[in-house]
Amino acid sequence: MAKKSDLGVTPLSEDVSAWYNELVFKAELADRGPAKGTMVIRPYGYRVWELLQSQLDQRFKDTGHVNASFPLFIPESYLKREAEHVEGFSPELAVVTHAGGKELEEPLVVRPTSETIIGEMYSKWISSYRDLPILINQWANVVRWELRPRVFLRTTEFLWQEGHTAHASKDEAMEETLRMFDVYAEFARNVAAIPMVQGEKTPGERFAGAVATFSIEGMMRDGKALQSGTSHYLGTNFAKAFDISFQDENNELQLAHTTSWGMSTRMIGAVILAHGDDQGLVLPPRLAPIQVVIVPIGRGEQAEGPRAKAHELAAQLAEAGVRAHVDDRDASPGFKFNDWELKGVPLRVELGPRDLEAGHVLMAQRIGELDDKGRAVKDTLGFDEFVAAVPDRLDVYHELLLERARTFRDEHSAPVDDFDAFEAQVAVGFACALHCGEASCEDDIKAATAATPRCIPVDGDAEEGACVRCGKASAYGKRVVFARAY
Amino acid sequence: MAKKSDLGVTPLSEDVSAWYNELVFKAELADRGPAKGTMVIRPYGYRVWELLQSQLDQRFKDTGHVNASFPLFIPESYLKREAEHVEGFSPELAVVTHAGGKELEEPLVVRPTSETIIGEMYSKWISSYRDLPILINQWANVVRWELRPRVFLRTTEFLWQEGHTAHASKDEAMEETLRMFDVYAEFARNVAAIPMVQGEKTPGERFAGAVATFSIEGMMRDGKALQSGTSHYLGTNFAKAFDISFQDENNELQLAHTTSWGMSTRMIGAVILAHGDDQGLVLPPRLAPIQVVIVPIGRGEQAEGPRAKAHELAAQLAEAGVRAHVDDRDASPGFKFNDWELKGVPLRVELGPRDLEAGHVLMAQRIGELDDKGRAVKDTLGFDEFVAAVPDRLDVYHELLLERARTFRDEHSAPVDDFDAFEAQVAVGFACALHCGEASCEDDIKAATAATPRCIPVDGDAEEGACVRCGKASAYGKRVVFARAY
Repeated sequence: MAKKSDLGVTPLSEDVSAWYNELVFKAELADRGPAKGTMVIRPYGYRVWELLQSQLDQRFKDTGHVNASFPLFIPESYLKREAEHVEGFSPELAVVTHAGGKELEEPLVVRPTSETIIGEMYSKWISSYRDLPILINQWANVVRWELRPRVFLRTTEFLWQEGHTAHASKDEAMEETLRMFDVYAEFARNVAAIPMVQGEKTPGERFAGAVATFSIEGMMRDGKALQSGTSHYLGTNFAKAFDISFQDENNELQLAHTTSWGMSTRMIGAVILAHGDDQGLVLPPRLAPIQVVIVPIGRGEQAEGPRAKAHELAAQLAEAGVRAHVDDRDASPGFKFNDWELKGVPLRVELGPRDLEAGHVLMAQRIGELDDKGRAVKDTLGFDEFVAAVPDRLDVYHELLLERARTFRDEHSAPVDDFDAFEAQVAVGFACALHCGEASCEDDIKAATAATPRCIPVDGDAEEGACVRCGKASAYGKRVVFARAY
Repeated sequence: MAKKSDLGVTPLSEDVSAWYNELVFKAELADRGPAKGTMVIRPYGYRVWELLQSQLDQRFKDTGHVNASFPLFIPESYLKREAEHVEGFSPELAVVTHAGGKELEEPLVVRPTSETIIGEMYSKWISSYRDLPILINQWANVVRWELRPRVFLRTTEFLWQEGHTAHASKDEAMEETLRMFDVYAEFARNVAAIPMVQGEKTPGERFAGAVATFSIEGMMRDGKALQSGTSHYLGTNFAKAFDISFQDENNELQLAHTTSWGMSTRMIGAVILAHGDDQGLVLPPRLAPIQVVIVPIGRGEQAEGPRAKAHELAAQLAEAGVRAHVDDRDASPGFKFNDWELKGVPLRVELGPRDLEAGHVLMAQRIGELDDKGRAVKDTLGFDEFVAAVPDRLDVYHELLLERARTFRDEHSAPVDDFDAFEAQVAVGFACALHCGEASCEDDIKAATAATPRCIPVDGDAEEGACVRCGKASAYGKRVVFARAY
């Protein structure tokens, strides 16, 4: 077993998996629920979700979407109407067979995703081209039975948003699919400080029932990929299955083209695994429940002045829109600093009686310069200077995390042209390789290396050649990103 | 069958039930879901919920609460640990028996409420008095199998918030119970413009497992009561069942005292039924998705100027925090005015080419003064005057709706001292009567009149006497409000 740090958490540098499993509980982000594979999102973790939700929801509204709520229960027969869809989801379904003390005539599936039930409603609401487009999003819980559950990453119930839109033409629907794909990438970059690889999925990795699936893939600290959001062009597959049709401008009956796109509580897992270190969480400031923690120092009466000043400064920061917190628990400053370090707070501030007299605070960043003893460098800032500086410091810190993640990703990504190099590369990060596009070859690579094709990057250069595994001619006209994945 | 108005909805004055059922669909607030008793909340209705949610959530945060998320699925055995609780909820449960293609060893109940699963987690999280109080709220969906479903009022799945708190003493827990009870009443008054009767439930109407239940009861336009929020003091009932215990300051083991409190999508039903009229919805401005609608008037080229000005005014209103909308659909002004009237928009504004020339708009209130032809009086307001006046007009309009609802309630409430008067009064509104407090007598009254004890008002005067039904000595020391209820 790996040695635990002072914090009671196995260091990330020794065992990422143990680190992750211990940290989510230790940092009070989440807990396991009583039913297998379920999770409790604790207040600290839920606040991250609320911040994610409000900033992502604003982007949906800015792009013309509205929210709605569709039922949790879907008649079993609905799932069966789209053949690929039911095949993909059948093994993961939870089914209500009894309700109100009786056996139901038709079992109800607990939604694993809502294309089918929303398709049924769209069929009812849409009759003319004037009713299009429909641009609806839903924030909801969904259930997919997981054999190897892991908090945030794979849980039987998770929270997510699912956008479902219907359009009069393929072009419009594809434009929407790509628009939301870009919204996800922009959100990941500017809110979660994670630079995503954006690309299209290979046919074997598509959403069950989609014509095309686009995903954003983040690199985690162990070089694995984490799919963090997907956007699907569904063609007329669901429109056919649910009769989503409309009279066009020439009074001819047409099938609508639909899309769906989702991001989930998995994104919290991405934030933990993309930024964390041996000392614990590293939260990007726009998702941090607490952006600045102020620790007043001093014993007994001596503590009164610093504590009062700390609350005054926190109130000033709150007015400037900063999430500030004063830690006046009855515990040692050392305990508090470690605790907030573990919890990933971007800026830690100390304020003792002598600082109060001198009219300044000492501020350290969670990630930043270290002194020659390996400790975080502390900046001395006058009170007003401190309050004025924080918003900008948080923005700079965001850029620092993003740049750090980008550098890490780029250092752990490489083009490879033979299978030895491929194996070595996917052991540490992303391998960009030419591939034949055959499902059997994908399976073969997965069996040999545990790596899967993550996506065909949209910004990849045109290139043809031999498949890195089987030597046949490459498909896709460019390299594919392969990686081990969460 | 009652005659339908021009709007395609049976007038409220003829048949409240038909009016309600038709209006929720016609106004696009909601639709029926495919599975029995489920509902789809459409974007216009969901926006009301979002506005309710954000304003209520702010009140929870202001009173020190944090949000979290607990699992949807509860092991069946958990429900059975609190005897009254399982007895109350058993007939309403939906049960998952199969998942991941297999029969489950222990069936999972879809949460009807979360006291049990949260109790289990609190037991894990609480060990010392230092861990108390815990003040957590959850926004979630819950499922209760309904035999007579009705959109918003009684659906098998509904959205709600449920607060769950744990405290070191009875006093603290009771203080919390009453605090949230007051938050609900204040919210209903200041956001939904509904004056609530606040009181304690009689033992027969308590939440299953509670020591005391407090409710807010609104009067609907047909004189019926609608329970719109409840707050429960649970004593140590759930603490015993789930072992929520803690070491007190003297190192002695104590049981925690817990509370729970909830408000749901039912509140949207309350808003519809408390304010609506023959012309449709009447939305209180703080819950109205659109507070001001501007209808540009004119044909062809003539419409260009008014339309451009309408968008300019709407943008200015948006900057002032007003939810404004320009209706530039290709339809007649008459159709539009009726449509927005049906949808309950507080302020309707028209702007034609001559108004544009004169530099003013014509503004009418959804509820307000009528001219001698029975049409809404229109105020003429210069453009700047209009933009400046709207926020204040919305506040005044809120007060008008609240006062209107209060007058209606007071005119339909009366003290009664004999059963003939009681029967007559509950046919039209609230009857305030002395009651013996016996369950059999409550049942007898319900069988005779369909009325139930809604609550024992907190502000009722002390009074003793004979039970209005059976003549035995009164209980409770004050009058009880009886009414037919949704």
